[in-house]
Amino acid sequence: RSSYSITLLPGDGIGPEVVDVAKNVLFVAGAKEGVELRFQEMLMGGAALEAVGVPLPDETLAAARASDGILLGAIGGYKWDTNEKHLKPETGLLDIRAGLGVFANLRPVTVFPQLVDASPLKKDIAEGVDIMVVRELTGGIYFGRPRGFGTNDNGEETGFNTEIYSVSEIDRIARVAFEVARKRGGKLCSVDKANVLEASMLWRKRVTAIASEFPDVELSHMYVDNAAMQLVRNPKQFDTIVTNNIFGDILSDEASMITGSIGMLSSASVGESGPGLFEPIHGSAPDIAGQDKANPIATILSGAILLKYGLGAENAAKRIETAVEQTLDNGFRTGDIYSHGTTLVGSPPRLGKTYVP
Amino acid sequence: RSSYSITLLPGDGIGPEVVDVAKNVLFVAGAKEGVELRFQEMLMGGAALEAVGVPLPDETLAAARASDGILLGAIGGYKWDTNEKHLKPETGLLDIRAGLGVFANLRPVTVFPQLVDASPLKKDIAEGVDIMVVRELTGGIYFGRPRGFGTNDNGEETGFNTEIYSVSEIDRIARVAFEVARKRGGKLCSVDKANVLEASMLWRKRVTAIASEFPDVELSHMYVDNAAMQLVRNPKQFDTIVTNNIFGDILSDEASMITGSIGMLSSASVGESGPGLFEPIHGSAPDIAGQDKANPIATILSGAILLKYGLGAENAAKRIETAVEQTLDNGFRTGDIYSHGTTLVGSPPRLGKTYVP
Ligand SMILES: CC(C)[C@H](C(=O)O)[C@@H](O)C(=O)O
Ligand SMILES: CC(C)[C@H](C(=O)O)[C@@H](O)C(=O)O
Repeated sequence: RSSYSITLLPGDGIGPEVVDVAKNVLFVAGAKEGVELRFQEMLMGGAALEAVGVPLPDETLAAARASDGILLGAIGGYKWDTNEKHLKPETGLLDIRAGLGVFANLRPVTVFPQLVDASPLKKDIAEGVDIMVVRELTGGIYFGRPRGFGTNDNGEETGFNTEIYSVSEIDRIARVAFEVARKRGGKLCSVDKANVLEASMLWRKRVTAIASEFPDVELSHMYVDNAAMQLVRNPKQFDTIVTNNIFGDILSDEASMITGSIGMLSSASVGESGPGLFEPIHGSAPDIAGQDKANPIATILSGAILLKYGLGAENAAKRIETAVEQTLDNGFRTGDIYSHGTTLVGSPPRLGKTYVP
Repeated sequence: RSSYSITLLPGDGIGPEVVDVAKNVLFVAGAKEGVELRFQEMLMGGAALEAVGVPLPDETLAAARASDGILLGAIGGYKWDTNEKHLKPETGLLDIRAGLGVFANLRPVTVFPQLVDASPLKKDIAEGVDIMVVRELTGGIYFGRPRGFGTNDNGEETGFNTEIYSVSEIDRIARVAFEVARKRGGKLCSVDKANVLEASMLWRKRVTAIASEFPDVELSHMYVDNAAMQLVRNPKQFDTIVTNNIFGDILSDEASMITGSIGMLSSASVGESGPGLFEPIHGSAPDIAGQDKANPIATILSGAILLKYGLGAENAAKRIETAVEQTLDNGFRTGDIYSHGTTLVGSPPRLGKTYVP
């Protein structure tokens, strides 16, 4: 098969502009390899709230499910920050993750050699960092019940959530992480808070049990507070990290910042079957939206991963990766990664059109 | 009054050796100012487990409560990592925090000018960082019920915890944080995950409400994943941070690592009334225990804060702070903060005896 349907979810803020660039790049790269890509744009997040009053319309989920891969821009914005939960853009994102069953979120954290100076870390610490964070994405405190607001014994209002993991939820994400680690440096670090939380104690027990299926992977465990320190102190000690939903949210963002170029980092969310969800790790950046300043590379590279892992279109993906590299080597930079001696550009024209080889 | 009783909880690993140094320093500094300090050493953590089979003996809590201030070394070690929860050293720490009602944990994050090169961050980013992290310490997911292990609808084992906050728990920590911010740079950043968690939504609502009592403090809100990034990207944007127990655990450790010298950082845990608990933020470092390598400064400075805030003995505290400064200015360093051109020393002799002015 050489014809695929891709659902585009531009979302909010800079989402539409970076998705637009990525779409052009995907189309051109696909065409050059005889891969026909059909794009269908659907509403999600704040954009959906404004248009139809819910953050994830049924048609969007249905279209996403029926497609071969989903490319998401970004969602959210100050405007909706005080909305009730079911009317938050973020709820649309959580619902589509759950609806697609994409329980494994893979976030590569790579320091691009051309951009090592952009890292807030000293050069010798940042150089060569290459980590894969595997975050559990459809369980834990994000989805656990009971949750909500209540009243305690003193008659006071409370807010509460449940951090909960079952054996099968842990086992399946552990297996994904071991598989990933096996194809990379062969080292997996599982991050938890097993010195305090029962949910983490079960996590550690099951990850340890699954390790016996992967004798070639070296497993270690680390407490989350220590992991937050070690990522700053010496990120090169990590190869693959696996952790729960909330710790993964925090640590993967921290890890991405040490690269100094989160406008470059993509992520893939995958399940047992069905299409995967591919997105930049950055947010919707409403403050720079519509000004042709956003760095589209994270979304473009998310598209490349979609082609490679989602569709098996490796050659088209390779073209995109090469295009990004050449663009950087030629010294073109958006503002977030600009440094003295490079050429400042807006996002669409050069990256979108000129540089797909 | 010029006579006080101090409970020492040496604990595990390097705990005993750093507490021993701090005790000597406190004694000398107190004596020079006519402040008599009586020390009582009690068992806690792994040390208590080995001696009497529980991580927090009743006598320890009783002695701590009856004293004027508590100085803790560190607890925990690999040896007890697989113990059941009620037999973990960490449980002793959580129980004494709860038993003393010390709901507010204050962690200053300061880059010492003499040690700016020790930071993993670039000099211009690290220089001048001066943050106070105010962490809620006796609530949230650390203590929330229900917690434990169960069976779900599929008959699978689960592990679960409850993140829960009540209005009064949030209000009191918010007030402490606003007071602290008022005496510092006048800026408070509250960190939560209110785009996903109900417990955080109530947190944000109450912190915002309490802000009206402190019109002179500028309040902002930040999501925890973003805060984890911003601490690496530009820590100088922060003055005072307030957050819940688990986010505070992660972020304060991350923040302390950006200083490059966690062997220097102290913390104070205080409640509405009763003695406070003072401790270094570093752990028990079992790998270097007993080798006269540990940096005792964090514990010494914890002792100084105990004198200042716990006992009102400001002059004695000042002597200790000056002693630490002079020791650093004179170029003496333990291994963790050693750099070319300084003099490597073991911990006790110089810091403990020679340098209290
Ligand atoms: C927007 C938010 C709900 C989301 C999350 O917390 O998962 C985001 O931070 C992410 O990491 O993708
Ligand atoms: C040892 C552990 C229980 C403790 C915590 O998580 O509170 C420690 O990490 C700390 O921050 O004091």
